[in-house]
Amino acid sequence: MKKLILAYSGGLDTSYCVKYFTAEMGYEVHAVSVNTGGFTDQEIANNKEKALALGATSYTNIDAIATFYDTVVKYLIFGNVLKNNSYPLSVSAERIVQAIEIAKFAKAQNADAIAHGSTGAGNDQVRFDMTFQTIVPELEIITPIRDQTLSRKQEIDYLQSHGISWSWEKAQYSINQGLWGTSVGGAQTLTSHQTLPEDAYPSQLEASDSQTLKIGFTQGEPTSLNGKQGSPVEIIEQLEDIASKYAIGRGMHVGDTIIGIKGRVGFEAAAPIIILEAHRTLEKHTLSKWQLQHKENIALWYGTHLHEGLYLEPVMRDFEAFLQSSQNTVTGEVEVVLHPYRFEVVGITSDYDLMQSKVASYGEENQGWTAAEAKGFIKILGNQSRIIANQNK
Amino acid sequence: MKKLILAYSGGLDTSYCVKYFTAEMGYEVHAVSVNTGGFTDQEIANNKEKALALGATSYTNIDAIATFYDTVVKYLIFGNVLKNNSYPLSVSAERIVQAIEIAKFAKAQNADAIAHGSTGAGNDQVRFDMTFQTIVPELEIITPIRDQTLSRKQEIDYLQSHGISWSWEKAQYSINQGLWGTSVGGAQTLTSHQTLPEDAYPSQLEASDSQTLKIGFTQGEPTSLNGKQGSPVEIIEQLEDIASKYAIGRGMHVGDTIIGIKGRVGFEAAAPIIILEAHRTLEKHTLSKWQLQHKENIALWYGTHLHEGLYLEPVMRDFEAFLQSSQNTVTGEVEVVLHPYRFEVVGITSDYDLMQSKVASYGEENQGWTAAEAKGFIKILGNQSRIIANQNK
Amino acid sequence: MKKLILAYSGGLDTSYCVKYFTAEMGYEVHAVSVNTGGFTDQEIANNKEKALALGATSYTNIDAIATFYDTVVKYLIFGNVLKNNSYPLSVSAERIVQAIEIAKFAKAQNADAIAHGSTGAGNDQVRFDMTFQTIVPELEIITPIRDQTLSRKQEIDYLQSHGISWSWEKAQYSINQGLWGTSVGGAQTLTSHQTLPEDAYPSQLEASDSQTLKIGFTQGEPTSLNGKQGSPVEIIEQLEDIASKYAIGRGMHVGDTIIGIKGRVGFEAAAPIIILEAHRTLEKHTLSKWQLQHKENIALWYGTHLHEGLYLEPVMRDFEAFLQSSQNTVTGEVEVVLHPYRFEVVGITSDYDLMQSKVASYGEENQGWTAAEAKGFIKILGNQSRIIANQNK
Amino acid sequence: MKKLILAYSGGLDTSYCVKYFTAEMGYEVHAVSVNTGGFTDQEIANNKEKALALGATSYTNIDAIATFYDTVVKYLIFGNVLKNNSYPLSVSAERIVQAIEIAKFAKAQNADAIAHGSTGAGNDQVRFDMTFQTIVPELEIITPIRDQTLSRKQEIDYLQSHGISWSWEKAQYSINQGLWGTSVGGAQTLTSHQTLPEDAYPSQLEASDSQTLKIGFTQGEPTSLNGKQGSPVEIIEQLEDIASKYAIGRGMHVGDTIIGIKGRVGFEAAAPIIILEAHRTLEKHTLSKWQLQHKENIALWYGTHLHEGLYLEPVMRDFEAFLQSSQNTVTGEVEVVLHPYRFEVVGITSDYDLMQSKVASYGEENQGWTAAEAKGFIKILGNQSRIIANQNK
Repeated sequence: MKKLILAYSGGLDTSYCVKYFTAEMGYEVHAVSVNTGGFTDQEIANNKEKALALGATSYTNIDAIATFYDTVVKYLIFGNVLKNNSYPLSVSAERIVQAIEIAKFAKAQNADAIAHGSTGAGNDQVRFDMTFQTIVPELEIITPIRDQTLSRKQEIDYLQSHGISWSWEKAQYSINQGLWGTSVGGAQTLTSHQTLPEDAYPSQLEASDSQTLKIGFTQGEPTSLNGKQGSPVEIIEQLEDIASKYAIGRGMHVGDTIIGIKGRVGFEAAAPIIILEAHRTLEKHTLSKWQLQHKENIALWYGTHLHEGLYLEPVMRDFEAFLQSSQNTVTGEVEVVLHPYRFEVVGITSDYDLMQSKVASYGEENQGWTAAEAKGFIKILGNQSRIIANQNK
Repeated sequence: MKKLILAYSGGLDTSYCVKYFTAEMGYEVHAVSVNTGGFTDQEIANNKEKALALGATSYTNIDAIATFYDTVVKYLIFGNVLKNNSYPLSVSAERIVQAIEIAKFAKAQNADAIAHGSTGAGNDQVRFDMTFQTIVPELEIITPIRDQTLSRKQEIDYLQSHGISWSWEKAQYSINQGLWGTSVGGAQTLTSHQTLPEDAYPSQLEASDSQTLKIGFTQGEPTSLNGKQGSPVEIIEQLEDIASKYAIGRGMHVGDTIIGIKGRVGFEAAAPIIILEAHRTLEKHTLSKWQLQHKENIALWYGTHLHEGLYLEPVMRDFEAFLQSSQNTVTGEVEVVLHPYRFEVVGITSDYDLMQSKVASYGEENQGWTAAEAKGFIKILGNQSRIIANQNK
Repeated sequence: MKKLILAYSGGLDTSYCVKYFTAEMGYEVHAVSVNTGGFTDQEIANNKEKALALGATSYTNIDAIATFYDTVVKYLIFGNVLKNNSYPLSVSAERIVQAIEIAKFAKAQNADAIAHGSTGAGNDQVRFDMTFQTIVPELEIITPIRDQTLSRKQEIDYLQSHGISWSWEKAQYSINQGLWGTSVGGAQTLTSHQTLPEDAYPSQLEASDSQTLKIGFTQGEPTSLNGKQGSPVEIIEQLEDIASKYAIGRGMHVGDTIIGIKGRVGFEAAAPIIILEAHRTLEKHTLSKWQLQHKENIALWYGTHLHEGLYLEPVMRDFEAFLQSSQNTVTGEVEVVLHPYRFEVVGITSDYDLMQSKVASYGEENQGWTAAEAKGFIKILGNQSRIIANQNK
Repeated sequence: MKKLILAYSGGLDTSYCVKYFTAEMGYEVHAVSVNTGGFTDQEIANNKEKALALGATSYTNIDAIATFYDTVVKYLIFGNVLKNNSYPLSVSAERIVQAIEIAKFAKAQNADAIAHGSTGAGNDQVRFDMTFQTIVPELEIITPIRDQTLSRKQEIDYLQSHGISWSWEKAQYSINQGLWGTSVGGAQTLTSHQTLPEDAYPSQLEASDSQTLKIGFTQGEPTSLNGKQGSPVEIIEQLEDIASKYAIGRGMHVGDTIIGIKGRVGFEAAAPIIILEAHRTLEKHTLSKWQLQHKENIALWYGTHLHEGLYLEPVMRDFEAFLQSSQNTVTGEVEVVLHPYRFEVVGITSDYDLMQSKVASYGEENQGWTAAEAKGFIKILGNQSRIIANQNK
């Protein structure tokens, strides 16, 4: 029997796929989920039970949280990446790592085919297809949901006709949760003028006070919280636990899908938003003017290419080399205060803080240079504009 | 007697200058202030009285609010410019326009010299000198505060020795107010780890409710508030009146001064921050993916050059041509909700909204293309990554 | 009968299309060619005769040389655009204008369908399809050569079976000629290691002497040759006549096709290469440092998007606004010397030449500033690097 | 006695400095030259003799050719850097390495002062001062030529008054020679409209034939010539020996000096120009579209910052990390043909050549995708432009 690897999430679409592949196409189906931070142990156990009940030969969950951080999230922090200045690319980034893990699994298993449950309307199909094509070009990519354009009712009817009578209520809001944030879709996100209601967000406001936190960074990576060391993944998770109770990091992202149409999605990402802002502030103190300037453009492109499924493009490795190099001095501690729905960055301390240099500091009196030197500086800095104005008048 | 034009603010430094120029250097001093949104009529009247009392031959206030908007603020909105992703460049932008107006005034008056009261430590000296050099290269630029490096006490003593015994208490916080925001310096901003206290900000929280506003844009410019038309300057001022009571738009800016050291300043800029975020959201709906991508880098440079006093560089006109062209379809209305200390953008309506296109929309079902077309798209989009992976393995 | 507009070149592929559309599909075929500089009157007459003989209801040649210059070539000059630093984008640019003209013709004619003869392997299909889709989205695009993947022999046999027994010898080199250069494909261009032989190029070396020319530019556009005024198109054509006899401007372009594979093509483009180099030299004398710096990146993108068929993307209009603005002072005369196979730019004269400024000039002695001012300039320019080195040691 | 380290070239200016420092200022002078490819052993011996005769306590020549290649030239090759698309930055790059070596020498020697002989008019003073300030901020920088603005005659008279009666004829052309090219200044380069005569160039045309060469690259570095391995420095030197006899790589550079005025200089750089063009061609075959696109902008900035003396800015290390990463597959051989005054790149062979992929190749028939897939690709690629045109009409 031909062996097929299916990217399996436990939802209706991929459940339909398991049944369809086994019943109609005669595949030996191996269902695989990749945890990039969104699954609890209970969900994984449920997934397994359901996959096997649907006819899958095996179910495997790949724990890719650390991989996700090491290969993508780290560089998003280095680059302070917020797509269109708002969205931490939560889903875009996860989907790539999930696709890579599944493709590698398929290769290791000598699979004959690989499958995913994306539709033909969005970004995920591009990320899955492109990644599969690149890593396992020899495998056929099978996508029944895209090809058959079935309604939910048709899928449910088909499963029932095969004895699967589980409840498949459509949630009012579609949620995608992971280490680097949670996206939320709903009726409002299909409009341009409405925003999500409070209760659409998985995290609810629980705190009413303020709280001060200290986030430590080592060469750009979050490595401590309130003075306690931890792996970056641990720091992100701990911070999320604390800050999500303040309903921080919510927003609406309006962006361009890879297929050329505009899309809109809500998100909550307390830890990512706080870490990015804290990291950016630390960089302002520890990087040179030119590093700050050039990093912006490089990070803009890193985010755009990642969003568009080009993670495996060689230029992404070149950008990562730049970003890694830029973090040499981004070490220090950042103080933030959480309030309901918002937070402030209070300030930073760092051995590399260029503002607390002994050579020169900002203010009324300076010992670094004389008035005459400043005048010489400005005179020559303005040489060209003066020449141009004179020449072209 | 030689005629000198002095950029006069009414503060201790430029008051010293008036007296020094008349008493010690024998100049006929014409004091000029340029209002870019920070002066009340009462302050202008006080300035006049003080300048003349100090010995100035004349005092002139130039109303440059509309000029400030037309020549700079407009493009900062088009570019969504926030220096280092936080600061709306309030002071940087104002100072340039002030310097230009004073230089033009000096030219019109056939002055023999031009003067400002900046020290040798900061950015303003660069903006004044560079602008003066370019517009009136024939005039000597005289800067006693920079040259003499006097203490406040020395200045006060000098004025007293000439019979000026006004009170010159040093404010706890130095404030610079204008149409496009207010900067606040204090003991905390000289550190890297402290933030300004609530009472350092000129505007105080007065509102406790929430309030919904609609801001209308016409080709990128703010032209209505809650459906009522107004000039962009009027809309900015009205919005500031409303939103400043919510203590919105406060922040700390850490940046690189033109002279190479890091500086830190607090700011409040309720209207600028809200307008920029509203404008950006409208652009996400009405501009193409490539416009959004390329605008980012151009706006980054526009802000950097402006900050560094290069407003008169010809490339700034080229950037402005790009930015103006990009706003053709940025017309529509944006809904925002104000809360104490924060605001949300609810959504937009626009005839140019690409998300509400009839050709295609984001979601599960699409009529714009088939599954086969989507697969063809992705296959060919992934051609090169597939070829590279195959070639280099 | 349904009316179809066919982009007709007179070659085998589009001749097959005329016959196929009339004989098999029952279309009323209107053959259209668009002259962007490559057709002689005789060729147009031949095209007409052939099209009608094949069964076309009408044949129209649209003279688009001036349009081609005004809408594309002008901006390629302003941007000094050479794709991958070698290729003046001759074919890429032409094809876009041809596609636009044909789409507009189809719209004006109320056509029912629109067709081109490109294969599924190259760039031209993308340029035609994308342009047709955007301008006449209501029309079906019919492409038999791409769909049927016929061999030359099959096409010839089909035509013969319909009584068309013309000779269709395959030229050894496929040539595409236009105002902005000529591309040459051959067996060698399919390899990576061979170059085209001398006789592959349409223009042959005829000159053995050297010749000095003066090219005049007005705001970036070529407007005179050896002191004689002319329209930009005339200047380009006159220069091509002279310089092509020197076998100047030949090269091999290796580039990325829009569909993701590498392609290689030879070209000769005497006038474009000379004009671009002359224009660039004039810009070095008349533009500011920052204009030169930022123009590079913008022109790089303008060329890339144009090559990839995105001429109708709104961002291209924004780039054009930038480029147009940048040419205000690019007026003057450039002297070049032609030699067999190469040319030199001797120098320029311009009222806007910033090198011949009275304020300051390059050399041992300067009157613009003192040694002390220079030292002050450098000291402060180096502030940040000094601070960083000190802080991080 | 206080110890002073002098950047010594053996010319009139730095000879004056030796005498002035010993006779007038009482310094113990240690003269240092840094060979970045321009000095012969004989010249070094002469320098030593002259320096000691002038009163220097010691003379040291630092051989920095390999350092020059490793720290700068390598990255100029990786980036295909030609300033303003013409000049390989020969002098700019050398001067930085010379300044660094001299500063390190001064530090190792516990010097009390450091000196150079640059004037106040050009770029070299900036490169020396900025490097010295950063590496040895504790040392005073002494620059008598800049400070005293002496004429040649005054310098010669002074030396004669101290018994130094050597001949100091001013050469008609000032030449600066190094591993990465030779600059040539003369009366013509002070104009905008004249070019240097043939005999101004140190290398003269000696060859009349054509010659084919094969240059091998390993991860972007030149490592073989005609199949014979060598260090990059050896390959550059061997190629220069051969190609300079063809008078290849000459040109005029018009550029912006760091102090804001335009400058013009001739150069000859046979090996650099050929290596850059060969390297670029190899990259076109072996790098992805996105690598080629983004490398352009990064290399543009790398060249600009290097030219402006910012080599020690931390962002330069970040750019170098990007450039190094981009060279992974830039391995192969490039064939070039030399002719008098010009050369052609024939083609390349490389295991990483993406054009010779088995997956897909450019041409009429392709097996990689179907016509339907191509049509789907283009349809969706054009989605946004179609939507925009429809929405905004």
